[in-house]
Amino acid sequence: MYLDIFKIGGNVVDDPGTLQQFLDTFCSCPERKILVHGGGVLATDLARRLDIPVQMHEGRRITDNETLRIAVMVYAGWVNKSLVAALAARNCRALGLSGADGKCIISRKRDPHPVDFGLVGDLTPESIDVLFIDNLLNQSIIPVFCPVTCSREGQLLNTNADTIASALALSFSPKFKVRLRYVFDREGITCPGSDRPLSLLSRRQYRELRREGIIYGGMIPKVENALKALESGVQEVFIGQTSVQL
Amino acid sequence: MYLDIFKIGGNVVDDPGTLQQFLDTFCSCPERKILVHGGGVLATDLARRLDIPVQMHEGRRITDNETLRIAVMVYAGWVNKSLVAALAARNCRALGLSGADGKCIISRKRDPHPVDFGLVGDLTPESIDVLFIDNLLNQSIIPVFCPVTCSREGQLLNTNADTIASALALSFSPKFKVRLRYVFDREGITCPGSDRPLSLLSRRQYRELRREGIIYGGMIPKVENALKALESGVQEVFIGQTSVQL
Repeated sequence: MYLDIFKIGGNVVDDPGTLQQFLDTFCSCPERKILVHGGGVLATDLARRLDIPVQMHEGRRITDNETLRIAVMVYAGWVNKSLVAALAARNCRALGLSGADGKCIISRKRDPHPVDFGLVGDLTPESIDVLFIDNLLNQSIIPVFCPVTCSREGQLLNTNADTIASALALSFSPKFKVRLRYVFDREGITCPGSDRPLSLLSRRQYRELRREGIIYGGMIPKVENALKALESGVQEVFIGQTSVQL
Repeated sequence: MYLDIFKIGGNVVDDPGTLQQFLDTFCSCPERKILVHGGGVLATDLARRLDIPVQMHEGRRITDNETLRIAVMVYAGWVNKSLVAALAARNCRALGLSGADGKCIISRKRDPHPVDFGLVGDLTPESIDVLFIDNLLNQSIIPVFCPVTCSREGQLLNTNADTIASALALSFSPKFKVRLRYVFDREGITCPGSDRPLSLLSRRQYRELRREGIIYGGMIPKVENALKALESGVQEVFIGQTSVQL
């Protein structure tokens, strides 16, 4: 049995046309499926309108109390419920979840040394309550995860959506043939001299492309996660556009 | 078998001390239970900080697109997830829900005549998916409802929390002995010349107290809902403080 885990980020969430197209593709997928979504510009916009400064360290956001509140309002509130409602309108029974709901993803606040990223949660292999989520899938319910989890002590924590998607993929790979699909607005990873994205990527090839600077920035953790997932039992990892044939 | 449905409003949500006390009481309740929460000042605060005007008609708020977004962010986002996380920390497995989640409360946008209240949802007896919610209760999961529902067409709608609580009570009364508990910061309904709240209230007595102006304002729909619930099979309705013995 297959389980398809889709992850969409800001560039899909923020663009109504891309989002509609994605949701159509998602709904047409006949297998058990999970959606994990990231943020989008709304959180940054809201922080700006509320005069809350964005604190960064080496390109990564630091989450203080005010930033967490915005993340929870935007990700767990507006974005999550909008997606769930859009799926409901398409006759998909979706259920929006943070990690606190059903205690289904219990994270650990990141060690403040050497850099204190604030209210950010990291996942361990035991973070995911597979039984709880599997129970939902068995009832043909589609879990829709926002990038917010919760510590054992009940602290809500900002958590990277790519990480949630790959942790879910790893946790379910003993049970299902898991296909992990990072959906975004580019076609995939393209090499110089070619106008078609790579259809396959090995770890050796990745190392080379990284050295050559073709895979860079935000793609690095994405590809690292993808390779790690494949090496840990996930059946297939896909990085590319929504319109692709499933 | 009993089902206890607790409804808390802004005066409980906004006061950390009252909220902690309520959550302790709630967790100690041994029966199947549901929590329905209202808003609080946070939504009004956020609207003010974002310069979004609050439009009212005869003391009732009109929900335009911007107001809905704030309601969803604050109620379905921050308030709902904070409650679920606080329950998780108390070892209660709670699940935060809007009506869109699992399509469990499908409402209808209120008729814009004679007054257009905007994106507000009304409930019908068929609004509640009893099977879905019962399934959660059977797994010892505590549903925590925010005052946001969803139309069949996938439109998120602002919905009165008292109404959600009484609709849930009515829907479950054929199956359980339902006790509906409107918890707030006053002791209950007190009559002049007495310092103790009424322990019982009949419809006839309600009519008198209303005529005398002792029951007034926001208490009127609350008591109306309560009496209607009792007359429709709900076992018991309680209006009063958190600290009361269950």
